[in-house]
Amino acid sequence: MTENDMKLAIAQINTTVGDLEGNISRILDAAEKAKDADLIVFPEMTVPGYPPRDMLYDTSFVEAVQTATLDLSRRTGHLPPLLVGSFAPSGEKHYQHPSLHNVAYLMKGGEMRVAQIKQLLPVYDVFFEPRWFVPGRKTMPPIEIAGRNIGVMLCEDMWDEEYPTHPGAELKAMGAEMLVVMSASPFRKGIGEGRLYHAKRQDLPLVFVNLVGATDELIFDGGSFVLNGDRLRRFEEEARVLTMDDGRQAMSHVSSSIAAEEDLFRALVLGVRDFARKNGMKKAYLGLSGGIDSSVAAVIAAEALGGENVTGVAIPSRFTDSQSTESARELARNLGIKFESLPLEKMHEAAEQALGAERSGGVSGENIQARLRMIVLTSYVNSGGGFLINTSNKTELTLGYSTLYGDMAGAVSPLGDVTKAEVMGLARWINSGLNVGRLQNVGRLQVEGLIPGFVVERAPTAELREGQADPFDYEVVSPQMEEMVLADQANAMMRSGEHKRWQMGVVLKVSGRSFGRGRMFPITRR
Amino acid sequence: MTENDMKLAIAQINTTVGDLEGNISRILDAAEKAKDADLIVFPEMTVPGYPPRDMLYDTSFVEAVQTATLDLSRRTGHLPPLLVGSFAPSGEKHYQHPSLHNVAYLMKGGEMRVAQIKQLLPVYDVFFEPRWFVPGRKTMPPIEIAGRNIGVMLCEDMWDEEYPTHPGAELKAMGAEMLVVMSASPFRKGIGEGRLYHAKRQDLPLVFVNLVGATDELIFDGGSFVLNGDRLRRFEEEARVLTMDDGRQAMSHVSSSIAAEEDLFRALVLGVRDFARKNGMKKAYLGLSGGIDSSVAAVIAAEALGGENVTGVAIPSRFTDSQSTESARELARNLGIKFESLPLEKMHEAAEQALGAERSGGVSGENIQARLRMIVLTSYVNSGGGFLINTSNKTELTLGYSTLYGDMAGAVSPLGDVTKAEVMGLARWINSGLNVGRLQNVGRLQVEGLIPGFVVERAPTAELREGQADPFDYEVVSPQMEEMVLADQANAMMRSGEHKRWQMGVVLKVSGRSFGRGRMFPITRR
Repeated sequence: MTENDMKLAIAQINTTVGDLEGNISRILDAAEKAKDADLIVFPEMTVPGYPPRDMLYDTSFVEAVQTATLDLSRRTGHLPPLLVGSFAPSGEKHYQHPSLHNVAYLMKGGEMRVAQIKQLLPVYDVFFEPRWFVPGRKTMPPIEIAGRNIGVMLCEDMWDEEYPTHPGAELKAMGAEMLVVMSASPFRKGIGEGRLYHAKRQDLPLVFVNLVGATDELIFDGGSFVLNGDRLRRFEEEARVLTMDDGRQAMSHVSSSIAAEEDLFRALVLGVRDFARKNGMKKAYLGLSGGIDSSVAAVIAAEALGGENVTGVAIPSRFTDSQSTESARELARNLGIKFESLPLEKMHEAAEQALGAERSGGVSGENIQARLRMIVLTSYVNSGGGFLINTSNKTELTLGYSTLYGDMAGAVSPLGDVTKAEVMGLARWINSGLNVGRLQNVGRLQVEGLIPGFVVERAPTAELREGQADPFDYEVVSPQMEEMVLADQANAMMRSGEHKRWQMGVVLKVSGRSFGRGRMFPITRR
Repeated sequence: MTENDMKLAIAQINTTVGDLEGNISRILDAAEKAKDADLIVFPEMTVPGYPPRDMLYDTSFVEAVQTATLDLSRRTGHLPPLLVGSFAPSGEKHYQHPSLHNVAYLMKGGEMRVAQIKQLLPVYDVFFEPRWFVPGRKTMPPIEIAGRNIGVMLCEDMWDEEYPTHPGAELKAMGAEMLVVMSASPFRKGIGEGRLYHAKRQDLPLVFVNLVGATDELIFDGGSFVLNGDRLRRFEEEARVLTMDDGRQAMSHVSSSIAAEEDLFRALVLGVRDFARKNGMKKAYLGLSGGIDSSVAAVIAAEALGGENVTGVAIPSRFTDSQSTESARELARNLGIKFESLPLEKMHEAAEQALGAERSGGVSGENIQARLRMIVLTSYVNSGGGFLINTSNKTELTLGYSTLYGDMAGAVSPLGDVTKAEVMGLARWINSGLNVGRLQNVGRLQVEGLIPGFVVERAPTAELREGQADPFDYEVVSPQMEEMVLADQANAMMRSGEHKRWQMGVVLKVSGRSFGRGRMFPITRR
C-alpha cells in the first residue's frame, strides 16, 4: 500500500422498505465498522429501502425519509465520507406524480450534498421508476475523495448501452479516475455476467455496490465487487474495507465459483427467509405430496426458516400411492421439519355427496381435491400462525396445469419462476452433497440423498385420478415454456391460465421474465 | 347550416385488445355509416385496442398492428378523411423497451400520415405508458379539413395543466380553430367534470372522442361530446355525425342527466358484460347469501348477461337465517336468474372431523365455511362452464374482513371498488324504480322492490358464527376507508389484507384509487 492508496468500504446491507429506523441503524452499524476507510459506499435507496413503489405517493412517508436522511448526515459527522442512497424533490410538476429524484448523497463532516441524480429510470419488467421519479437531466461531475476523482452512478446509469444517454462515458470525460455504482439490482439467472460486462465498459476501476435481501417478489443478491477481483458474499450482508491501489487496476474477470443450482437455491432461500422476517412471521406450512416440487420447496423452506419452523402436511387421497406419503415422511425426517398426515377421503366423500356426480366428477373432481387440500393447509395457518408456501413450478403455471384456490394457493411461491427441469436440477444438486457445509441449516444434516430416491426417480403425477401421469415430457417442455414466456406469444394454453396467474401470490423472481407484477399481460385479449 | 359548416362524425366504438380483425371491421362499419361527414374521428389506439400493455413486447403483434393500420388506410380511400389511433416505431433506442409512439393517423384518399404523436404519457394509477411508448418531442401543427384548421390531440395531452408541456395551447398558437381529442379515458366517479374542465381550457370548439367498452379492470364509458352541448351515449357504441357551424361554438356545460347511482350501475354492468363477451364466455355463477352485496352483484350480473345466463347459489350453513335463503330465492325469482340451494352442513361436519377442533374452530372455522362455499361455487363453474363473480365490496377488502380463497374468490369483482355505503345506495336506487325502462334486462321486470326488503333492512352480517353482526358501522366506516385507500396511509388493518388483495381477481375500477394493478403497494414494508 502506497501513500496514494485509497481505502474504500462497501456496505452491502439488507434494508427493509419503509423501515427507516431499522435501515438507519444498519447504516450506522456498517459505517462504524468501516471507520478507517476513506469512503463508505451503500446501495441505492439506502434510507427508504428499495422499492417503496406507491408508498411514494404518501407525502408523510416522503417527508419522513427526507428528515431521516438529513438526520443521518448529522449523526455521521465523525465518520469518513458516506455515499448513501435516498431521494429528493425534483421541483418539477407532473400530474399525479411524486416528482422525486433518485439521489446519491455524499455525507461528509455532518453535512450532505447531492453527488448524483439517477438519469436512466428503468421501466421494463419489475421496474416502474418513471411512475415516481423524474430523471436527472445531466451528469454531475466526479467528487473528490482522498485526492481521487470518483464518478458516482446509480444502478441503471451503468446499463446505458441501449439508451440515448451515457452517464459513465460522461463521467470519464469529466476526469473520473474511478467509478462507484450504487445499485439495487435483483437476482436473475446469469445476471453476474451482465453486471460485469457493463462494469468493464468504461475501462476504469469500478466499485459495484449492490443491495442484499428480498422484498416481495424481488431478491437482491448482493455480490458487490471491485474490478480487481474482490467480491463480497452473495445473499448475505457484508461490510468490507478494500484497498484501491494507486492507478489503474488490472481488469480481471469476477467469476462466481458457485454452481448455477446453488446460486438459484440461495436466492430462493433468501426470498422465503426475508418474506417471513420482514413481515414479522416465523412459521410456514406446505403440502408434502411426495412429489419433486413440494420436496424441493420443503428443503428451501427448512434452510430459510429452520426445520423447527416448518410443517409439511401430507394429505393423501384415494389416488395417492402409499409410497408418496412414506417418502414425504422420510423427507421431513431428513430435513428435521414437522410432519403431519391428514387423509382427504372423508372430506372428499362429503363433497361428492353434497355436490352430486355431475359437479364432483372429471376435472371438477380433480379441482375439488386440490381445493380441499388448500382448506387443510390454510387451517394450519389460521390456527398456528405464519404463512402457506406454494409449491407450484413455472412450467405448470405456464401451461395452466394447476388449480386456482387449490395448489395455486400460498402467500409466497419459491418455485413459481423455476421450470420443472430446473426443479429437477435443484433436486439433483441437493442430493449430490455439493451443498455440504455451505448451507446454514439443512446442508449440515446429511451428505447425500436428502430427498428420497422414490421422489426423484418417479414419473411426475398430480395423483388426482387413478393411474394419472402428467401429460408432458418436462425435459422437452420446460425449455419451450421458458421461450414462450420470454416471447410472450399468444398461445391458447398460456392464455387460459392468465386469469389464474393474475390471482397468484408472490412468485419469487429468478428469471428474466417471471409471472407477477413484472408481466403486465391482459386477460381480456385476442 | 351555412356553406362553411363542417360535418364531423364521432365513432365511439368498443374495440377489443389484440382483435385486429374485429377492430378493423368496427372501424369500417362506423366509417361507412358516417360517409357524408367531412371527418370521422375514432378513439385512441383504435386498431390495436387499448391498453395492449405487454403485448407490445411481442414484435409479431407490433408488426401485425402496423400492417393492419396501413391496410385500413388503403381500404378507406373512398371514404371521408379518418382520424384513427394506432402506434408507430419511434426510432429511439431504450433498453428492453418497444420504443413506440402513440399516434393519431390521418387517413385520406387511400394514404395515411401521422397527424399527432402523444406527448404526455400517463404513468399513475392504472397507466404505465412510458413502459412501452416514447413521447412525441413536439406538437405537430393542425391539419386542414374542409377549410378548417383542426388541432389533433391524444387523451392525456388535453390534461396538461400539471405537466411541463402544453400541447393544447401550442395548437392554438399554431392557428387551430378547433380541437379534436382522441381518448381512451376510463370511467370513475366524477370523471365527467374533469373531462369538461380540461376540454374548456383552450377556449376553442372541441370534440372529445372516447372509447367505450371494458377490458379487465378498466371500464371505458364513452360519453364523447362536443363543446356545444352534443353528447354521445355513455356505456354504448355509437357513431354520430355532428354539424360544427362556422365560427366559435357557445361553450355550454355538458352535464349528465344520469344519477350517480345509475352511472355506477351501468359502468359495472358494462364491466361484467365485456369481461364475459371478450373472453368468449356466456354464463356466470355467484353465491347468493341473502345479503346486500351478493344481491346487488346479482342484479348487475343479470343485467349484464341476461337472467338465463346467471346462476345464484345459496349455500346456507348452520348459522344461516332461513330468511336469508328465502330472500335469495325471492331475489332470483325477481331477476329471472337460475337459483340453487345447497346446504353446507355435511361438508362442514366432515371438515371439522378431519381437521379436529383446534383447526376448525374460531376464525379458522369461519374461513373453512367461506372456502367450502368457494368449492361449491367453483364446482358449478367447472361443470357448467363460465366464470365466478366475486361479491366482496371495497370496504371489507380494505379492512381485510374477508377470506382469501373463500369469499375473495372469483374471476371478476363488480363491487371490489364500491364501498359498502355505495352498495347500499345502489340497492336503494335499484329498488326505487328509477331504473325502469333504462335498463336492458332486469329493469323491465319490476318497478319497485327488486331486492327483497329483508335484504336491504337487515344489519350486515357474514353469518359465519351464531348471532354474528359485522363489527363496523358502514355508513361511518365506508367514507373513512375510501380516504384511507386514497391516502394510502400505513394502517395495520389495511396492511394485514395486502397479501390477500394481491391475490384478488379482476376488480372493476370505478374510483380514483382501486385495488388492483393500479395500486403498487408492497406487501413487505414497515
